[in-house]
Parts: sequence; structure tokens; C-alpha cells
Amino acid sequence: MAFWGGKPGARGGQQSIRSLVRRVYDFLDTSDPRPVAPFGHGDPSAFACFRTAAAATEAVVAAVLSGKHSRYSPAAGVADARSAVAAYLSRELPYELAAGDVVLTAGCNHAIEIMIAVLASPGANVLLPRPGYPTYEARAALCGLEFRHFDLLPEKGWEVDLDGVEAVADERTVAMVIVNPNNPCGSVYSYDHLAKIAETARKLRVMVISDEVYGHCVFGSKPFVPMGVFGETAPVVTLGGISKRWWMVPDWRLGWIAASDPKGVLRDKKVIQSIISYCGISVDPVTFVQGAIPQIIAKTDEAFFENAMNVMREAAEICYQKLNDIDCITCPHKPEGSMVVMVKLDLCCLDGIDDDVDFCTKVAREESVVICPGSGLGMKDWLRITFAVDRPLLEDGLERVKSFCNRHGKAKEVK
Amino acid sequence: MAFWGGKPGARGGQQSIRSLVRRVYDFLDTSDPRPVAPFGHGDPSAFACFRTAAAATEAVVAAVLSGKHSRYSPAAGVADARSAVAAYLSRELPYELAAGDVVLTAGCNHAIEIMIAVLASPGANVLLPRPGYPTYEARAALCGLEFRHFDLLPEKGWEVDLDGVEAVADERTVAMVIVNPNNPCGSVYSYDHLAKIAETARKLRVMVISDEVYGHCVFGSKPFVPMGVFGETAPVVTLGGISKRWWMVPDWRLGWIAASDPKGVLRDKKVIQSIISYCGISVDPVTFVQGAIPQIIAKTDEAFFENAMNVMREAAEICYQKLNDIDCITCPHKPEGSMVVMVKLDLCCLDGIDDDVDFCTKVAREESVVICPGSGLGMKDWLRITFAVDRPLLEDGLERVKSFCNRHGKAKEVK
Repeated sequence: MAFWGGKPGARGGQQSIRSLVRRVYDFLDTSDPRPVAPFGHGDPSAFACFRTAAAATEAVVAAVLSGKHSRYSPAAGVADARSAVAAYLSRELPYELAAGDVVLTAGCNHAIEIMIAVLASPGANVLLPRPGYPTYEARAALCGLEFRHFDLLPEKGWEVDLDGVEAVADERTVAMVIVNPNNPCGSVYSYDHLAKIAETARKLRVMVISDEVYGHCVFGSKPFVPMGVFGETAPVVTLGGISKRWWMVPDWRLGWIAASDPKGVLRDKKVIQSIISYCGISVDPVTFVQGAIPQIIAKTDEAFFENAMNVMREAAEICYQKLNDIDCITCPHKPEGSMVVMVKLDLCCLDGIDDDVDFCTKVAREESVVICPGSGLGMKDWLRITFAVDRPLLEDGLERVKSFCNRHGKAKEVK
Repeated sequence: MAFWGGKPGARGGQQSIRSLVRRVYDFLDTSDPRPVAPFGHGDPSAFACFRTAAAATEAVVAAVLSGKHSRYSPAAGVADARSAVAAYLSRELPYELAAGDVVLTAGCNHAIEIMIAVLASPGANVLLPRPGYPTYEARAALCGLEFRHFDLLPEKGWEVDLDGVEAVADERTVAMVIVNPNNPCGSVYSYDHLAKIAETARKLRVMVISDEVYGHCVFGSKPFVPMGVFGETAPVVTLGGISKRWWMVPDWRLGWIAASDPKGVLRDKKVIQSIISYCGISVDPVTFVQGAIPQIIAKTDEAFFENAMNVMREAAEICYQKLNDIDCITCPHKPEGSMVVMVKLDLCCLDGIDDDVDFCTKVAREESVVICPGSGLGMKDWLRITFAVDRPLLEDGLERVKSFCNRHGKAKEVK
């Protein structure tokens, strides 16, 4: 009868980067004295060189001690914090966002959860990039929102395959998602490419959900251009947060959803209203972190960000050089943003490795290196490698990957 | 075509206490110089007399400054914090909980969200109390989990109508939810009543979800007994958090789900595994608050809790006395726990008041008093009143309610 005889947990089996990577950790050989090289999950806060700005920490401490922020937050977030985020985002837009265009969330994953829930309606579909960030797929599956994939093109610097977007869209498509700077590819979209994405969205009459959690985390030749710049062409919903740019405070759980909607399309459709409604029955961001946001934004100086990008540029460079030095791995595009890169595994050069998952489990067991298998991101026999790791461990870990590949490489003449 | 012509936000219209109360706020007369009496939403942190323990604040500040907790959390929470919560809950159980029996959540609402999502499967149903806490209904609706109500009985001190529970349960019922100490009734369940609830759950073969976010917040004659005490009779999932007992840190967003399951029923059904799986794609509690939990629990002394309950006992007493002094309001049970009470509106004594919602909107406009209408909690023509308000405003606000009732009362002979 009932539960004791029944089958619970039907909804509990979704994928996340975390669960993908966690499974790889299970293969580590705990008797290996070498430190684990954690290339699986971008968590630079593990390393001293990636400490957040002192001004940010001070702002949070002051907010806790003030006792002014221990109250429940309004569903859309604390007004001052919404205003501060609106002003921060407006710096790079051709128009001003108002506080009412911004909803604060408990991190960017939460922003994804909210947007997917708000868009879910019977028959609707959303277009997601491949490779992508599997939380989108997992949340859509949970809400019963159909998703369809379009490709990112490695040979074109991981640009969006816009013909592919048009091919999979139909009259029930409500949104397309882009991630820029890109996780997992490490690419950054140019102004011109973003303009083309906006044109495609206009043509399809869909909104663009622009995941900019890595906003400003660029260290190549291309500047970061927010998608909101093209809000006149198509309505844009930007997802962002402080976790990446403010190295590295993923645990502060403060993200946002911002509508760049100068033509009022989203307003007319009551999208922001639906978002706030959903927030009413969802998790709130910690109020004292919201309380600290105006100070975090105002007090963190440019030198902190510049230094952060210098460290990341160097790490990306080392990563790219070391990867290029490994025969069975191809890196189609040098990383220029975010803190991750996608590389292709040439299985034909390897003996006894079945696929990307097999590669990751064996390199974990034999070399204590954790890498995220690409198949979990929609790219079988690719790997996602995080380079937000301090330099000695980054170099050492990639050397271990090289040893592994040499050890498992086929005889030289095959190469 | 597509979104611009479509209808988004189909999932955005759920109810919450917050949205119910927010609507009442809209009726306030901003020209009224009197302070708003906020009896709608339990947020004592607004008042100086309800400041959290200094030790708790210090623990959080130390955790932020340590820089040790700025990493991503494991899906189930940080190990030390899970252990600390397990030990804390075990103090009052006849057996020890292990860290693995506890999952940390971003507040107790988040714990509700997770449990409802994990239980949702086609055809299943869950039993919810009436009056209740509408987040349960909202989250169940969102997940497509059928819910059925059983009554709490005002004439029996708001005990669960156990015959009613059996009447609405069927072979697809997976769980029954109780809230103890009770929101919105202010009641506390006795050991004997909890034993009967466990017996009913055993008979129906369902788990008990015991919402104990107000655990230990008791100030009448009955002690707080955790439902987990009866885990041998039926499996119990306890939802809790620090927001209420540690006055008042709702914004710290730290809750938990704990399985009191000595017979291993939940373990065999992989319930905890499903919960952790869901957590993998959901919001994490802030890591530094998790990091502070062992210290928050260890360092907060009994004097803080005693003082807190003394303040609350006095507030409840004032509230009860003042309410008894209002003709058109009946309080069937003196509050002995939580920080809220349900009272019945006698509409026949009032002129020109249609129902509870009409009463709340008019008392907001005319008296700047915010009260939560009972119809949002399943009890038409009842009111939920929060007494976690500092004494002068509590007294003044209830005097204003009395004036309102007198002003709108029918001629004396009618009474």
C-alpha cells in the first residue's frame, strides 16, 4: 500500500555538472599521495591566488553586523540592491535599466531555474546550445518544458550555428539561450555575432536568454559585450551574478535576472511579473548579501578585476600550451573568456579507452586528475577542462594527463 | 508567431503568504502618520527586541573572514555542518542521526520545495493540513503533485482530525504533512497526539513530513516533542531551520531535511538519495553560513533561548488578552508556540464587511494594520495574526483593530 510499497523520487534523477563530476571523483585512488588536480568543476576559491576582493568581504561583514538586513526579502529582492545592479548593468547599455527591470536571485543557477519555470507551458519549447550547461536541460525536464538543441561551431570559434537555430525553431519556440562568455567552450562572442543572434531572434520572434554569469571574465582580444545592447532588436533577459567576476564567491549566492526590453515586449507579456510571482514561492537570496551589494559594486576597484584577468589569462595560456602538447587531445579554440575550455579527444590515438567517460574515470584513477566528460554536456568524446587552478597544480595536472595519454597511446606509427 | 505573440508565465501565479500579505499592503493609506502594525508576516527581525544571538552573528562573520567557506557546497551540504545538525537533532531523539540522514537546504521553504518535488510522481497524492502554509499547495501545484486536505480542529486545540486523515487517504497517498509548533494556529502537539499521528501514518503506510521550523519555539505548558521520536512507528522526514529559534535570521537561509528512519524505510526507497539528487540542480545554502553552523549551535547559550521565549510568551499573552477584548473576533485557542495565531471573524457582528479579505483590506486602509486573511490558508473568514511585534506596536495595533471593529460593529442589540 501507499508509499512504503511505492516508488518515490521519480523527479530526483536529473543531471548537473556537479553530479557528473562527483561520479568522476569516486574513481580517485585515495592511496595516491599526489594532490588531486581539480579540472572538473570551476571553483577557483579553493586557491589562495583566487581570493575575492577585500572590499567585497568587508561589505558583507558590515552588512551582517549592521543587523539591518536580517529581515525577509521582498520576492524581487531588496530595492537598493536591485537599483545598484540595474545601474551596474546600465553602464554598458545604450539605455538605462530601472530597478524594476531587475530581480535578484539566489545565484545564477537559481536564475536559470526561475526562467525555465516561467517559460514552461504546454507545447512550448526553448532552444539550448550544444555543448551547454546541463542545468538548463535538467530544469526544463523537471518543468516539462521541451528543449531543442542548436550547435556551437568549434571551427568558427564556437559561434552559434544560426542556420541550425532557424532549423529547429518553430512557432512554439519561446526563447533561445546563449552563454557568453561561454561555458564550456571558453569563447567570447563578438559584437557582430551578437548582432546576428539578435536578428535571428527577431526573425523567430523569440526572446534571447543571455547567460552572462561570466560577464567581464574575458582575457583575449575580444571585449565583453552584453547581449542587452541588442534589446531594441529582440527582447533580452540577462542572467548574471557576482560569483565569477568577484573571484570567487560562488557561495554568496547572489544572482540576477535583468530584462533589456526597451520596446516593452517582456513587460507587455508580464514576464517580469511572472518571474516575481515565482520568486514568491522560491528561495530568497540572503538578505545581508543583498544589503552588501551596493557597497560590493561601488568599492571593488578596477585593479582587482585587472589582476583577476591577468591571472586567468596566464592560466588559460598555460592550459592551451600544455594541451597542444598532448597528441590525443585537440583544442580547437584558445580560451579567451570564462574559466573553462572544450577539447576533443582523439580516441583513435588511444588504446583501450572506450569514450570520454572511460577516459575521465581512468585518468582520475591513474593520475588523480578530475576532468568533466563532454558527453554530459552533449559532446561525446570531448572534455571540459577548468583552468581556474593555481599554476603549479595546473601545470602538474596537465603533465599527468600527458603521461596518461602517452602511456595509453597507440604505437607511434599509428599517429 | 512564437513568444511575442504567445502567452508566457503560465506557471507564475502561485500563492504564498508573502503575496497574500503584499496585496494587503497595497491598501495602506500612505498619508496615515501612524506606524504600520505588521501582523501579517512573521518577521520579528524588524524589531530591536528580536535580535539574534551575538554568538550566531559572530560565527557568521568569522566564517566570512576565514575565507575557508567561499567554495561551492556539495549538493547535500558541507559535511561538518550536516554532522552538527544531526547531533543537534539527536539530542531529543531515542537514537542518533548520522550526518548522512541530514541534507542542508537554503531555508525551510527550500526544504518544502525539495520534498514536494521528490514526492511528485504521476497519480501520487500528499495530505496537507487546513489551515496550513500555502507554500505546500503552491509547490505541489507546480510539480503536478495532487494534494488533499485534512482539518485541524479548533475545538480540540487545533489537533489533527485523524479520522479525516484516514477518510481522504488512499493507496496513492505518499505522505502526510504536519506543522508543529503550528503555523498558523499557534498550537503545540502533545506527545500523545504525535503518537496517534504516527499510528495513523503507520496504518496508512505513509511517511510523516514534520515541519518543525518553529521547533522549540514553545512558551505554554506543553514541551516541544520532535516527531522523529516516533520514527520507529512510521518514517519521519523533519523539515527545520535556524530562522525561527535563532531569532530571527530568516535571511540566513539555512534549513534542513532530516530523516528519522530507524527502520530504514526511507533509505530502502532511496528517498535521501533522491533529495540529494534534486539538490544537485537546485539552490545551495550559502557555504559560509553552513561553515558557521557548528559554532552557531555550540555557542548560543540557553539564556538566549530562554529570553527569547519569555519575550514571545509575553507577546502571546498580550495578543490573546487584546483579541479577547474585541467582540467580533474569537480566539479558540491561546497561542502556546510559533509566533502566530488563528482567530475567527464573526461577520454577523460587523456591518458592511463581506469576508476576511474585505476585513483585511479595510483595516489596512483605515487603521494601517496588516493582517493575513485566512482564506489564503484555507480558512475563509478567519485571520492569521502574528504577534512577533514589539510590545508598544503590538498593543497599539490591536487597539486599532478594536476601534475598527467597534466602528463597523452592528447596533448593540444585535450582539
